[in-house]
Amino acid sequence: MMMNNKDIRICFVGDSYVLGTGDPECLGWAGRVCVNARRTGHNLTYYNLGVRRETSADIARRWRAECECRLPATTENYLVISFGVNDVTIENGAPRVAEEETLGNLRAILDAARVRYRSLFVGPPAVPDAERNARLAHLSERMLDVAAQAGVPSVALFPYLVNDRQWLGEVQASDGAHPRAAGYAKIATRIEACPEWWFGSRKFD
Amino acid sequence: MMMNNKDIRICFVGDSYVLGTGDPECLGWAGRVCVNARRTGHNLTYYNLGVRRETSADIARRWRAECECRLPATTENYLVISFGVNDVTIENGAPRVAEEETLGNLRAILDAARVRYRSLFVGPPAVPDAERNARLAHLSERMLDVAAQAGVPSVALFPYLVNDRQWLGEVQASDGAHPRAAGYAKIATRIEACPEWWFGSRKFD
Repeated sequence: MMMNNKDIRICFVGDSYVLGTGDPECLGWAGRVCVNARRTGHNLTYYNLGVRRETSADIARRWRAECECRLPATTENYLVISFGVNDVTIENGAPRVAEEETLGNLRAILDAARVRYRSLFVGPPAVPDAERNARLAHLSERMLDVAAQAGVPSVALFPYLVNDRQWLGEVQASDGAHPRAAGYAKIATRIEACPEWWFGSRKFD
Repeated sequence: MMMNNKDIRICFVGDSYVLGTGDPECLGWAGRVCVNARRTGHNLTYYNLGVRRETSADIARRWRAECECRLPATTENYLVISFGVNDVTIENGAPRVAEEETLGNLRAILDAARVRYRSLFVGPPAVPDAERNARLAHLSERMLDVAAQAGVPSVALFPYLVNDRQWLGEVQASDGAHPRAAGYAKIATRIEACPEWWFGSRKFD
């Protein structure tokens, strides 16, 4: 197969959904979209920087250093950012991160990211928990607004998953928070269907 | 399938061979041994912290911070460390890192690692380049000695790969440095066959 000779590096920064927690294939949606990108001829190096339990505040602290050593000036560099579910989780009677703070963290990350790397924001998924979903619905919309204001393209997941019985069922049958292979494949398909995704099909330029 | 309920986290720290560069399946040997560990019932979370082009000096600088946020005190934590090929690469007439310095970096990493995490050192592979292999043969042996002195178990790859035509052929047919799927599968099989690997078969304790 012909390979595009551009040396493409891509970092996926975020939480356990980015990491692919619970996926028996150890790929998650990030790994799946990269396998498919390579299959369509892109010479792509895949870095997964998802970390379990992390909020936007945790991610804001580490993403710069972790991306800098993986995305050198000599290669064509991409960054995908996704988080939110851990921020709205209630601990000690309040969300782990207040909504305004989440949005501030997202804005800071995107402002710094977009001048360095071709960047994409992926919104948080839905969970099988009505109360958390109410907060996530609101947060997800506002996050997409922040991304638009920062000039960073985005892909929403929440509206796509909140009424999806297969997604919710798989998450519930697994650990209550994460899907298994089918759920991650579904997100990968969703992202690949968006014009914002760079490697959806053979697009050599 | 019954899952062991222990919450196991494992970080793989190292270079492009750890990352799985060139693998069309985006797993490398690290991803493959984790897929197999999950298949045999281990509730394992997989973090791949391999970075292309990095020497022991680069890895020594970042591994602590990257592992700390991924391996919390509340889970059962494991660390696999592997590097060496980039250290012996000649740049400006000399190896990128001198042998004594490589060994010093390895010693410092292993001394700090073994008191925090169950740790394993995996030696560097062989490459289709006689001159580099001569340096790697020597370095690999000395690295295994350093690991033994630090009380960290290790798995050698170099002697296993240096005369393996399938490995060398695949690397040569790829980018000259990295294999594709078969080579990474071979390393995964080698590691799983070693008693030092923790998740070789269903071993609940």
